[in-house]
Amino acid sequence: MGKKVGVLLSGCGVFDGAEIHEAVLTLLYLDQNGAEIVCMSPDMPQAHVINHLTQQEMKGETRNVLVESARIARGNIKNLKDVKAGDIDALILPGGFGAAKNLSEFAFKGPMGNVQPDVKRLIDEMLDAKKPIGAICIAPATLGMAAKEKKPEMTIGKEEQVIGAMNAIGVKHKVCAVDEIAVDAKNKIVTTPAYMLGPGIKDVAKGIEKLVKQIISMI
Amino acid sequence: MGKKVGVLLSGCGVFDGAEIHEAVLTLLYLDQNGAEIVCMSPDMPQAHVINHLTQQEMKGETRNVLVESARIARGNIKNLKDVKAGDIDALILPGGFGAAKNLSEFAFKGPMGNVQPDVKRLIDEMLDAKKPIGAICIAPATLGMAAKEKKPEMTIGKEEQVIGAMNAIGVKHKVCAVDEIAVDAKNKIVTTPAYMLGPGIKDVAKGIEKLVKQIISMI
Repeated sequence: MGKKVGVLLSGCGVFDGAEIHEAVLTLLYLDQNGAEIVCMSPDMPQAHVINHLTQQEMKGETRNVLVESARIARGNIKNLKDVKAGDIDALILPGGFGAAKNLSEFAFKGPMGNVQPDVKRLIDEMLDAKKPIGAICIAPATLGMAAKEKKPEMTIGKEEQVIGAMNAIGVKHKVCAVDEIAVDAKNKIVTTPAYMLGPGIKDVAKGIEKLVKQIISMI
Repeated sequence: MGKKVGVLLSGCGVFDGAEIHEAVLTLLYLDQNGAEIVCMSPDMPQAHVINHLTQQEMKGETRNVLVESARIARGNIKNLKDVKAGDIDALILPGGFGAAKNLSEFAFKGPMGNVQPDVKRLIDEMLDAKKPIGAICIAPATLGMAAKEKKPEMTIGKEEQVIGAMNAIGVKHKVCAVDEIAVDAKNKIVTTPAYMLGPGIKDVAKGIEKLVKQIISMI
């Protein structure tokens, strides 16, 4: 029996959902390393829909986070509200703005905004159970908001505004290159900057592969 | 200067667009092998929109193939009508039902249906210029329809109905495992079954990596 690793998706597309490359690379390296994948996503409307060609909002259009996440998961996905920490051995949050728009209010209200209730619940359960959590790209913002009482150490790229926001809620920031990971051994939290730094898919793949291997080794 | 390889996307999601894993793995291996990636897609409505959670059609909803493909390309994508064979050294078509619903009418009308005009034009230009073309999963159906006068040899999984349809228009079928490729050296056409066989992302990745390397070696 492989180790069960949850992948928490936030939609399908970098500007309003889960970053597709980061999500697929997470699935690739989990499968290559023998993990059983459990995709999940909250059943709720997206914060908004962005036209990825023009980067403009598609006013009046609504999409559901779970339904769009199902595109990345090829339909094999659970409703987040039905997933408990007891169901999985570890959890990984790929990035994309959806992680900071749908899984929390970070993109709109900063680090004092709310975390989506089931995201907060599952992260709390994972921390209590001392099960490892990985977060990629901008997803450490939401993880940091949920886990701030643990004062985790994480990497979240190099934008001073983002780093400052995380510091303000007690997150320690570690500078990492795109092919590196930050490991908070005490809290079992692993992060990598991915497309916060880029530049290309082969670069972000290196950090994500390391993150997946580290997460599996901490189970 | 890297070799320029076009990636022809047909939307974003296995049931109505490009298969996301196959598309992302194509981009990964192109980047890892030093190619310059040129994503492209036709600017036209999708044949329909499928809810990937329920696999039911979302009646009344319309999406644009180019706009949805831009999600996989992170916005860095060209309108197919503006791309000529002279702009690229090779072309790859990832699979997903979009390749057989939006790039041609294969899924609705079989191999005697039409190929989208700009898809047909670019494939014809590539064949005339003796530039290599790769096709993944169900995409060989559309490629075979466009290139049928060349009587290409391709692989397209193991479903007898699909193989029979391709044979009927003069395509020779070669049985391949998911980690194998079919190489038609005369026509410079390379195919791999990917999710026509599956079962998982690590399996389809093997065939796609081989396909990308073969395509680059034929430039």
